[in-house]
Amino acid sequence: MGKVNVAIVGATGAVGTKILEKLLERNFPSSSIKLLASKRSAGNKVEVGEKQFVVEETVPEAFDGVDIAFFSAGGKISEMFAEEAVKRGAVVIDNTSAFRMVEDIPLVVPEVNLEALRQHNGIIANPNCSTIQMVAALEPIRAKYGLKRIVVSTYQAVSGAGSEAIDELQAQADQLESRAEIEGEILPSAAGKKHYPIAFNAIPQIDAFDASGYTLEELKMMNETKKIFSMPELQVSATCVRLPVVTGHSESLYIEVEKENVSVEEIREVLSHAPGVVLQDDVDTQTYPMPLFAEGKDDVFVGRIRKDPDKSTGFHLWVVSDNLLKGAALNSVQIAESLVSIKTSI
Amino acid sequence: MGKVNVAIVGATGAVGTKILEKLLERNFPSSSIKLLASKRSAGNKVEVGEKQFVVEETVPEAFDGVDIAFFSAGGKISEMFAEEAVKRGAVVIDNTSAFRMVEDIPLVVPEVNLEALRQHNGIIANPNCSTIQMVAALEPIRAKYGLKRIVVSTYQAVSGAGSEAIDELQAQADQLESRAEIEGEILPSAAGKKHYPIAFNAIPQIDAFDASGYTLEELKMMNETKKIFSMPELQVSATCVRLPVVTGHSESLYIEVEKENVSVEEIREVLSHAPGVVLQDDVDTQTYPMPLFAEGKDDVFVGRIRKDPDKSTGFHLWVVSDNLLKGAALNSVQIAESLVSIKTSI
Repeated sequence: MGKVNVAIVGATGAVGTKILEKLLERNFPSSSIKLLASKRSAGNKVEVGEKQFVVEETVPEAFDGVDIAFFSAGGKISEMFAEEAVKRGAVVIDNTSAFRMVEDIPLVVPEVNLEALRQHNGIIANPNCSTIQMVAALEPIRAKYGLKRIVVSTYQAVSGAGSEAIDELQAQADQLESRAEIEGEILPSAAGKKHYPIAFNAIPQIDAFDASGYTLEELKMMNETKKIFSMPELQVSATCVRLPVVTGHSESLYIEVEKENVSVEEIREVLSHAPGVVLQDDVDTQTYPMPLFAEGKDDVFVGRIRKDPDKSTGFHLWVVSDNLLKGAALNSVQIAESLVSIKTSI
Repeated sequence: MGKVNVAIVGATGAVGTKILEKLLERNFPSSSIKLLASKRSAGNKVEVGEKQFVVEETVPEAFDGVDIAFFSAGGKISEMFAEEAVKRGAVVIDNTSAFRMVEDIPLVVPEVNLEALRQHNGIIANPNCSTIQMVAALEPIRAKYGLKRIVVSTYQAVSGAGSEAIDELQAQADQLESRAEIEGEILPSAAGKKHYPIAFNAIPQIDAFDASGYTLEELKMMNETKKIFSMPELQVSATCVRLPVVTGHSESLYIEVEKENVSVEEIREVLSHAPGVVLQDDVDTQTYPMPLFAEGKDDVFVGRIRKDPDKSTGFHLWVVSDNLLKGAALNSVQIAESLVSIKTSI
């Protein structure tokens, strides 16, 4: 296939901006890139390097002639315009949770389940940020040694809640002495009734609660992982926590593999050759992943790999990645690149 | 027994100061309180309310006539002076890791294993902060439903690394915009070779690494928990992470109980009557423990209790407590109160 016409819906947001940057940085074979956003942002100019773009309003006609449309403007906008874009001939790569668990919509991390892209009805879903880095780190282990179980506790950055959450952390961050008086206005969830300070705090709630007592973020990790791995029987449970970190999600993973007597060295060996994964695991030199150093990087960083002392098939891993890049924008652009290279029917 | 003469070694440190405050606040039956510290601090005055104390140098003779000596000045000082204090007639309550795993030295959390206090050779060890809050929260569950397994991921505050770590966080906390240039000088471990920024970061290292790949902090949680519960067969594994939080450790616990078919409501019921534990668990009102709100409080707060979807005996809990209080000073003072009330041989 030749060059493609691209649209980015939500182009002025935290993830939309990164999608544009990644498309340009990776020389995506686009013949045009159209930036779409709300009426309020229409007419604004966006500059990346020497290129200038003018933001247009997201209306149905905007998708005429578009081959690939990235959606990253919230679930409601996706529900409103994704089918419309498909009807006008585009393939939609959707960064929201709107379509992720719909049965015939592929949920894709290219390093893990590229083949799921071969059959789609015009919409492809990009998984939740915390899910992507976890499955990218685990796929090489799963493929070689099997996977029975995941227990994950997350350490998530505020940028996952949008730029207003970054502003909130910044406004609170210099109040260490008077931290007891800080009042939250946005987090844990702008739509929630109660808000708590994030600076000098850890909030064990991301997104709303389900009747099960789990948050939607936790359920996303649990359900999306099973779908991406095509393993409905996989045992996954999650605890998701928001931290005063700007960008970069961290995850403390406990896993059980199928194969007996796998060594830590074998896990390290497998990860050291895995696409998109960088092994940072040397305790002698205090080498392990940290979110502050993952920011702006494309990879999924893995370290602190060690065996459970009581379970021969149990391992602990510490997994860190930039939640706006591999967790969102980069993965979406990689999906688009894969679509182009496997010459699907777009 | 009558009133006792008390000494606090390391009285000018973060925990020593809190021990003095708690002794006064709880009207501990002391006839005298002697503050001991390094030669450098000797002569300094410490005021609590209307009471004034003069710091003296820690020398062997300082323990003459002392009935109970709290030690909180690092493992080396405990190794140097604890036996000396015992020889001169004091019972030592040691807040360092120096004696915790010594076989005939009791390791005590009064709500959990008070009876261990009945037999001692003059030294009683106060467990590690992250261990105390975990066993205090789990004991009521263990006593009623049995306990097979714990997998814990911690979210620990900088005050656990001393006041210089708090100063370091404060110095870094207003550099959100220039966070990539922050340089760490103290954390993760003052004695380590490498230092990393803590503001806007999460550091998966607390204390030094063991040859097993676990940190000493993780091994403390694993080994101390088995000793306090008198359960060498208990399966415990830990991942310990330092956060940009001033005070208040949080823990994401996954546990497996022995009894089948225990409900979340039963776990909540047991915890709602547990000594020293406060249940904060109502997702409808976004009620759950957070470190910023646990600071300065005596209790261990528990919430986010939910069942593992794939394991009927598995539960998740989120446990938060002030690491300087129940995690250190308060627990030490409670040990002293227990000693007084069970009229041991001091």
